[in-house]
Amino acid sequence: MSKVNIADKFTLFERYWEPKIVGELNNQFVKLAKLKGEFVWHHHENEDEFFLVIKGKLKIKLRDGIVELNEGEFTIIPKGVEHLPVAKYEVHILIFEPKGTINTGNVDSEKTINDLDLI
Amino acid sequence: MSKVNIADKFTLFERYWEPKIVGELNNQFVKLAKLKGEFVWHHHENEDEFFLVIKGKLKIKLRDGIVELNEGEFTIIPKGVEHLPVAKYEVHILIFEPKGTINTGNVDSEKTINDLDLI
Repeated sequence: MSKVNIADKFTLFERYWEPKIVGELNNQFVKLAKLKGEFVWHHHENEDEFFLVIKGKLKIKLRDGIVELNEGEFTIIPKGVEHLPVAKYEVHILIFEPKGTINTGNVDSEKTINDLDLI
Repeated sequence: MSKVNIADKFTLFERYWEPKIVGELNNQFVKLAKLKGEFVWHHHENEDEFFLVIKGKLKIKLRDGIVELNEGEFTIIPKGVEHLPVAKYEVHILIFEPKGTINTGNVDSEKTINDLDLI
């Protein structure tokens, strides 16, 4: 049985907004991502998403509000809810979501990534 | 949309080995638990389990080895794999697992908890 050191994994990242898979369980993936800047408004038709901030601060804009996450804080964005992650400075996050989840959900964007690396 | 501050939630715990539910997504629960001492050997017939150490150190004994998790490290125990969590000192962990998962898996023990609090 192996273990994953989250900080070590983050040394392997070169690009923002490119989640990488670090674990798999019950048809879900555990992913890590480095974010900086503004993503794209999107929602996921069938998947709820868990976002935990490992380092930094993340704002997730919603059509009717905003969630501001600091280190050690998480939120769950339910399926169907439009959201826009925004990171003024670099932020490291852990994501937990079903295997088929596409990062930009219902939107096809230059930020869309279909094949994620397993690290 | 609400957020969860993990450290704040841990102030609400009174007992060891009594996980509490802090989130729900995709038919899975996000749980927190404070552990100290030795649990019971068990496995889960149908559920993989994710353990992330938030604070402290956790050893998970396996029949053929051991995983030692420090703060910021996680492991996934696949369904069917017997394991025994051991915490020499108090440890705080975050767990992802399917909703129906019982903490002691296939074993009926004094540590078995069927109804978890949602906090």
